[in-house]
Amino acid sequence: MAGRGKLGVIAGGGALPLRIVEGCTRRGEGVCVIRLAGCADAALTAFPGEDCGLGEAGRIIEALRREGCERVVLAGLVRRPNFKSLRLDWRGAALLPRVVAAAARGDGALLDLLVAELAAEGFRVVGAQEALDELAAPAGVMGAYAPSADDLADMRKAAALIAALGPFDAGQGAVVAGGLVLAVEAAEGTDAMLARCASAPVPQGAARSARGVLVKRPKPGQDRRIDMPTVGIETVRRAHAAGLAGIAVEADGALVIDAAETIAEADRLGLFLYGFDPEETHAP
Amino acid sequence: MAGRGKLGVIAGGGALPLRIVEGCTRRGEGVCVIRLAGCADAALTAFPGEDCGLGEAGRIIEALRREGCERVVLAGLVRRPNFKSLRLDWRGAALLPRVVAAAARGDGALLDLLVAELAAEGFRVVGAQEALDELAAPAGVMGAYAPSADDLADMRKAAALIAALGPFDAGQGAVVAGGLVLAVEAAEGTDAMLARCASAPVPQGAARSARGVLVKRPKPGQDRRIDMPTVGIETVRRAHAAGLAGIAVEADGALVIDAAETIAEADRLGLFLYGFDPEETHAP
Repeated sequence: MAGRGKLGVIAGGGALPLRIVEGCTRRGEGVCVIRLAGCADAALTAFPGEDCGLGEAGRIIEALRREGCERVVLAGLVRRPNFKSLRLDWRGAALLPRVVAAAARGDGALLDLLVAELAAEGFRVVGAQEALDELAAPAGVMGAYAPSADDLADMRKAAALIAALGPFDAGQGAVVAGGLVLAVEAAEGTDAMLARCASAPVPQGAARSARGVLVKRPKPGQDRRIDMPTVGIETVRRAHAAGLAGIAVEADGALVIDAAETIAEADRLGLFLYGFDPEETHAP
Repeated sequence: MAGRGKLGVIAGGGALPLRIVEGCTRRGEGVCVIRLAGCADAALTAFPGEDCGLGEAGRIIEALRREGCERVVLAGLVRRPNFKSLRLDWRGAALLPRVVAAAARGDGALLDLLVAELAAEGFRVVGAQEALDELAAPAGVMGAYAPSADDLADMRKAAALIAALGPFDAGQGAVVAGGLVLAVEAAEGTDAMLARCASAPVPQGAARSARGVLVKRPKPGQDRRIDMPTVGIETVRRAHAAGLAGIAVEADGALVIDAAETIAEADRLGLFLYGFDPEETHAP
């Protein structure tokens, strides 16, 4: 696939950038990794690329162009600019006022700005699932366990709630248990949301010990090339610690990192992993 | 006001039941306090009434009737039935399946059921603000500080978000700072929501050190006699600890407990306290 040209990977925190880089390398595709200071995984230094501050927009664009990257993926991006690791260059400084204004409106606005800037420079910005198609969540039951009718009802409610929050650029996750909204995700992220579910009062009268569904899906109208919801082994472990029955994500609207290991862990802990069609989430 | 008959107070946790009982007693109105086991303030034992489990529906109704209560207020109710302190009597046992089903749909459904049951027995269920009118949040600026234009924009966004969550019976609170949704309240309650805001990343570029608004308002269509949002001294202290600029509540749609002391604390800590008209919350 050398004909596609090198893939530029602007790498933030978490496991996603490394998985993409490893996957492309395995398939013989070249990469240029822009390791963002203060968040990129140290293991990424084994691959060709550069360490940059998020504010070095000029240097980032120059490096991507010099290496002949036509496609660029933003993966595991920092969610809020940290001024200590920005390392502004002239180009970054020129962008800064718009970055600050966008950051204040929410993560979605900030990422839309970055994508527009890269596109204006002639790069084709692709989603993580296009860069490495094994990441996209499939439809249906992924592991050994399937959601019950009650679980599907909880899933539909959480999915509809996330859709209703779309205009507020608030979050991509919610937990519903036995019809009760246990938690709604905002700036704190999925891990913190699951942590508080672990100490939440469980609805009484539940016939099962494990109850409740974590749902993650993109915001309505969200650009699918950036900031896709992700789940992985840690998500499964935290959902289990929170006493949930399973995890549902929108098929093709979320990334499953290390899918084989993640599904194996869900099987081991007795949780279902389910990819839903958006059509399924309408109330019956 | 003896002509109105005694006020029955079904007392759950927190300061609200005690304030209502003290206020009515101060004005020479009789009260009969049903102290719910496991949650009512110990100070309530100084007033006439009975200790009951939430499941002793027969005994509660009998006590209210025997004491000649025509009006009943549900204040500081337990949010989720705790089976250990239910103490079911026959009448309560007959109600239980519906209570469990309602609890699973959310707090609103549970409270609607209790109100319907009391009304069916001929009691007039009144809101806390009717039982003690000094509790209702007034319109406008309450203390020494007024919200800025930025604060009002944050307030409008949080208020609209809560309204959008109405159909999900999820919560009555949200925090928005500089246009960014920091937190959305669900089963965890306002205190836990403010605690996580204290450790949330603050949007950069903020000109002020204190930024962000806690908004509390009823769910759309909510019965105003039950489960009204409340703020008090502790809310002010926690909002301050979270670094917020102030608190906004819907005028006549929230209760301010110990209003004089709460406003004094907000003045001391430099926070605004503001009662908004629902019309104000439409985007400009």
